[in-house]
Amino acid sequence: MSGSIFGKVFQISTWGESHGKALGVVIDGCPAGISLCEEDIQKDLDKRKPGNSPFSTPRKEDDRVEILSGVFEGKTTGTPISLIVHNTNQRSSDYTEISRLYRPGHADYTYDQKYGFRDYRGGGRSSGRETTARVAAGAVAKKILSELGVSILTYTLSIGPVQIDKTKFDADQIYKNFLAMPDADAAQKAAEFLMKQKESEDSSGGIVECVVTGLPAGVGEPVFEKLDAMLGKAIFSIGAVKGVEFGSGFKASSMSGSENNDFYRFDEKGELTKLTNNSGGILGGISDGFPIILRAAFKPTPSIHKTQKTVNKQGENIDIQVEGRHDPVIVPRAVIVVESMVALTLVDYLFQRVFSRMDLIKKALS
Amino acid sequence: MSGSIFGKVFQISTWGESHGKALGVVIDGCPAGISLCEEDIQKDLDKRKPGNSPFSTPRKEDDRVEILSGVFEGKTTGTPISLIVHNTNQRSSDYTEISRLYRPGHADYTYDQKYGFRDYRGGGRSSGRETTARVAAGAVAKKILSELGVSILTYTLSIGPVQIDKTKFDADQIYKNFLAMPDADAAQKAAEFLMKQKESEDSSGGIVECVVTGLPAGVGEPVFEKLDAMLGKAIFSIGAVKGVEFGSGFKASSMSGSENNDFYRFDEKGELTKLTNNSGGILGGISDGFPIILRAAFKPTPSIHKTQKTVNKQGENIDIQVEGRHDPVIVPRAVIVVESMVALTLVDYLFQRVFSRMDLIKKALS
Amino acid sequence: MSGSIFGKVFQISTWGESHGKALGVVIDGCPAGISLCEEDIQKDLDKRKPGNSPFSTPRKEDDRVEILSGVFEGKTTGTPISLIVHNTNQRSSDYTEISRLYRPGHADYTYDQKYGFRDYRGGGRSSGRETTARVAAGAVAKKILSELGVSILTYTLSIGPVQIDKTKFDADQIYKNFLAMPDADAAQKAAEFLMKQKESEDSSGGIVECVVTGLPAGVGEPVFEKLDAMLGKAIFSIGAVKGVEFGSGFKASSMSGSENNDFYRFDEKGELTKLTNNSGGILGGISDGFPIILRAAFKPTPSIHKTQKTVNKQGENIDIQVEGRHDPVIVPRAVIVVESMVALTLVDYLFQRVFSRMDLIKKALS
Amino acid sequence: MSGSIFGKVFQISTWGESHGKALGVVIDGCPAGISLCEEDIQKDLDKRKPGNSPFSTPRKEDDRVEILSGVFEGKTTGTPISLIVHNTNQRSSDYTEISRLYRPGHADYTYDQKYGFRDYRGGGRSSGRETTARVAAGAVAKKILSELGVSILTYTLSIGPVQIDKTKFDADQIYKNFLAMPDADAAQKAAEFLMKQKESEDSSGGIVECVVTGLPAGVGEPVFEKLDAMLGKAIFSIGAVKGVEFGSGFKASSMSGSENNDFYRFDEKGELTKLTNNSGGILGGISDGFPIILRAAFKPTPSIHKTQKTVNKQGENIDIQVEGRHDPVIVPRAVIVVESMVALTLVDYLFQRVFSRMDLIKKALS
Repeated sequence: MSGSIFGKVFQISTWGESHGKALGVVIDGCPAGISLCEEDIQKDLDKRKPGNSPFSTPRKEDDRVEILSGVFEGKTTGTPISLIVHNTNQRSSDYTEISRLYRPGHADYTYDQKYGFRDYRGGGRSSGRETTARVAAGAVAKKILSELGVSILTYTLSIGPVQIDKTKFDADQIYKNFLAMPDADAAQKAAEFLMKQKESEDSSGGIVECVVTGLPAGVGEPVFEKLDAMLGKAIFSIGAVKGVEFGSGFKASSMSGSENNDFYRFDEKGELTKLTNNSGGILGGISDGFPIILRAAFKPTPSIHKTQKTVNKQGENIDIQVEGRHDPVIVPRAVIVVESMVALTLVDYLFQRVFSRMDLIKKALS
Repeated sequence: MSGSIFGKVFQISTWGESHGKALGVVIDGCPAGISLCEEDIQKDLDKRKPGNSPFSTPRKEDDRVEILSGVFEGKTTGTPISLIVHNTNQRSSDYTEISRLYRPGHADYTYDQKYGFRDYRGGGRSSGRETTARVAAGAVAKKILSELGVSILTYTLSIGPVQIDKTKFDADQIYKNFLAMPDADAAQKAAEFLMKQKESEDSSGGIVECVVTGLPAGVGEPVFEKLDAMLGKAIFSIGAVKGVEFGSGFKASSMSGSENNDFYRFDEKGELTKLTNNSGGILGGISDGFPIILRAAFKPTPSIHKTQKTVNKQGENIDIQVEGRHDPVIVPRAVIVVESMVALTLVDYLFQRVFSRMDLIKKALS
Repeated sequence: MSGSIFGKVFQISTWGESHGKALGVVIDGCPAGISLCEEDIQKDLDKRKPGNSPFSTPRKEDDRVEILSGVFEGKTTGTPISLIVHNTNQRSSDYTEISRLYRPGHADYTYDQKYGFRDYRGGGRSSGRETTARVAAGAVAKKILSELGVSILTYTLSIGPVQIDKTKFDADQIYKNFLAMPDADAAQKAAEFLMKQKESEDSSGGIVECVVTGLPAGVGEPVFEKLDAMLGKAIFSIGAVKGVEFGSGFKASSMSGSENNDFYRFDEKGELTKLTNNSGGILGGISDGFPIILRAAFKPTPSIHKTQKTVNKQGENIDIQVEGRHDPVIVPRAVIVVESMVALTLVDYLFQRVFSRMDLIKKALS
Repeated sequence: MSGSIFGKVFQISTWGESHGKALGVVIDGCPAGISLCEEDIQKDLDKRKPGNSPFSTPRKEDDRVEILSGVFEGKTTGTPISLIVHNTNQRSSDYTEISRLYRPGHADYTYDQKYGFRDYRGGGRSSGRETTARVAAGAVAKKILSELGVSILTYTLSIGPVQIDKTKFDADQIYKNFLAMPDADAAQKAAEFLMKQKESEDSSGGIVECVVTGLPAGVGEPVFEKLDAMLGKAIFSIGAVKGVEFGSGFKASSMSGSENNDFYRFDEKGELTKLTNNSGGILGGISDGFPIILRAAFKPTPSIHKTQKTVNKQGENIDIQVEGRHDPVIVPRAVIVVESMVALTLVDYLFQRVFSRMDLIKKALS
């Protein structure tokens, strides 16, 4: 119950700390008969790696995944899939100072308050490294979604003040530039902005956008487990997310009904279309068959060199400079994490759709 | 599993449609020994009622709650509490036309896609009337929170382009004006704006803000059931919500780390303070003991008189005008619904906090 | 979380006390499109009624069920189904004495210990009357099972020392005699035995047997939610059950492997058969397509006229005679309760079977 | 959802197959602040090992446990605990024949039916080796129980026709003889009986008994998650269990109320006692503070040398002799598994007891 299990049908249980022996995940509820090998998972983990970017930590994270159970002769068996990634590059000695104080913007203080003490090495369980396990599980979820015709496209929408120009949208760019932006010009400008932030020993926030296509209508479980509610939970569970919106999002609050309502039309082929997609593909908490659109606002990396005020455990007011080199922006590496959480949620609720109707159950069981 | 159960410890199971016999909720997990009577619940239900406002539907909803079980000699018994509100004012005859077409911005199409057919009377289960049961359960949650020293203040932050002026914040105004705004001037301007929207047969969106005080540090269950994740799910489960944010929210995406980080300081009394509260009272998914701050963006009421394009079930493109008189803005009546969902979430995770630490468990069981 | 929610997919939430205003259940997870009316449920509730039997309490329980939500135009809508049964015949005045002492064999003492106080009227929530809600929900489950070709036969196997003779098994007898025995002779002998018990102001236990046919192979979720584990939980949740067994049951403990193993054979038509069914239709926690066989041992009714020793809340040792007229044996009325719990469990895990295999999911969603 | 997660508060997620790389468990919900090291777990795993007994498989299972996460500086951190046991002695070559046929009494046929195919090496996930993970998690649960004053004593009650003599009960014997019998004479007789079974290439069943002391009154969550229901589920989830009973158990079905009711008395010190314990320490599904007593009937080991009839996947009737050397009785090694499942259930519901009463919650959170 302590919060590290996610999902109802396709359930994952993650574990591991930044500087422990390993991180991993157990998937309970993956159906039998899906082709799965380590490379299927590794390619998503590689997207999460710091890589050679000037905007990511130089900590070398090799992050090789190993499948320990649940796959036999290349196929899932229907029994739990255990995935493990060993930690190979932790340097605990860096973190002794941190154990005695509370870094602003980090979870140091709240973990101490909650658990009475904390594994302070690299943030322990509150480290972004925890998302390794999410990405590993998400890769399995994406495998299933692709068999069901569902695709997810995720990218950086903005970094600080620099937003992409949607008229220049080029999906191929996403994993070509260091910033996962589908617009080479914006990526260039954002890079320049980040260099300035680094020089002033500071960091930046940004926004990730995600578009899902191919999801059939009818996914989502009102009234509490609406599709947007469950996606909202999934995205807010990622560290550093401060806001989530769907379709017209916050803008809807200053729109009138006649602007925001999406009008239906049958097109010339007789297929249902919508003239707009302000709903972001969800109405009444249920997918409507049009693209799901969501955005997540990330706060700036809290670890900065700039001098900050804080307190220590001895009850003193102190000034600190956070040591080590950290990503000046979290957003580019968070793109695959957002995608993974969306995939995990969609698989779960797409499966549950079967139970909405007796005719679907009969079809499956006949 | 079809989505109408909410919570893990304090679990509620809601039921009922707009034009059915009744609506209600069963609470499983309310501890024994809490004083509870119908009036405790009725006063929150009354806040949800259309009332005499020119900006709410003239449908008369009497909404008297009845406690059917779980309370004995004025106290909760620890067994399930069943609450019921009978529907007394439904007029099904209005809705025959709606059964054959899909209203823009409503869940008509998605319910048909999901379930194969739908109870079209007044939106059936997808009606805002469903929130009656949430408010009833939320009142019980608030009773518990108040015993534990937690308070929730919820209000309208903006309607369309009209936002409150925080320097004029006056909590007493909230339930004095029809729009639940804690600023009489803004309420006046918003009322004028809404009259214009009504005249042009249109509607408006708005934003609700919620501030929680008295919640201790240590509430929230990382990594998936972080406090912001669970509150996010709770708020997104309310119909018409298109965006949710905490603390600095979407603004954080264009801030630098040194601006967004909240610096800690011990004040002159030696108590821990933060110089800002951009985190909205949550770090690493755990409450930090400072106020929780969240905002929810509501889309404009989809039911408008203005002519709209849509399709019917026979496959035709048609134009419609939605009949009946509807609220030109949903926000003022949604305030108590947001508050209820926040209360339900907080009770659940405040209870779960006990399990974080062996010393707390021992204290309880000794 | 307080234990009144049952099931994972087909989830029921029951509520109500013996002498409260009503009892009921909310079903969350019933698929859309199933024909359902009150009479479908009423006929099972009638089997639970005391009736005119000399062996059941003369309390008149009319127990008319009302469907409050989730059914529209004669079909389930896929949204929560709320069922209510009003209490019409409670006489609370009988129970004041009981509030001050602990009846042997009842839950008086444990409810006080757990909740700090209790609704002592008729046992409150611990009363057998609570099973009314189970039977109502079970009737819906049985409706679904019958659409899927699954049948359940449940009956009294023994009362005290009197066991049925299986060579005389006659299913038609089950609801013809007062004791639900499929053997008229045994029913006669058991009736005589019970008359003697009544004369000596005492009561009797007995055994219920249940046989499920038509359940396909592949139902059950190892390793913890094996079909026998979930049925075991379901049956042990019925008050007064002290033992549960499947197939050869306790006898298996003194058998050798060569006796207990069921040998497979293809019969002359090429269909798979088993030469015996000691497994009771379950191997490795999964149904094997052969009949599920289970037995539940019920303790004797604890309410007896005979003088008993006990204590009161003032700390005194006292002697009591339990007033009122009670069933001298609980078994005949428990038959439908066992059947209901089996049905609820089977629907839940039969539905879950879809998730075992990707091919079944694809078939349902295609 | 596929059944390998157990518990609600103290949740475990197990994984691994007989001949996979490793087996393990993730514990989510272990409170922070409990001393834990590998040796705490190892000592229970050692009880499960085949050892040098002539009545257990000669497969050498070293079974060294490793803690991968959730423990820091010797104490649990409140975050997930991942435990792993590497498989070191698997010989997959033995099992090719098995892949083509269905062994009587095993789950070969049902796994194929459920999942479409199976990992046939050593039974895959359906192997008793899966219980390694349960015992590892159970050791952590027992650590917590011991801090809360709860003890569990588990032993072999009978093997085939040989039952212990309770007048000779000697707890020290339990892990001294190969058969875990608390009666040296019975152990000797049972050993002789088993030698005969081995000679005739057959096997035997038996009964395990478990007695819990120190559990406070008030544990268990009626009406569906009664303590006996949850223990019943836990025990029936162990492979080979065909029956479970509490207190007077099946015998209660032929007792009268005056015999079976436990009479309360205050003893000379003014403490509450019961003159008997036919209830097995549970009334109305809630512990009464007296010892919990349960028994589990195990079927004989299905793997026997004796020739058996069965079928193969090609649709032929065949005769087989199961190769390899197997335990002639499963009971002695199952004793620690029963104890582990009882411990896991008790921790979970003992924790939940806190939520029954507002005064306990306030005490914990104050």
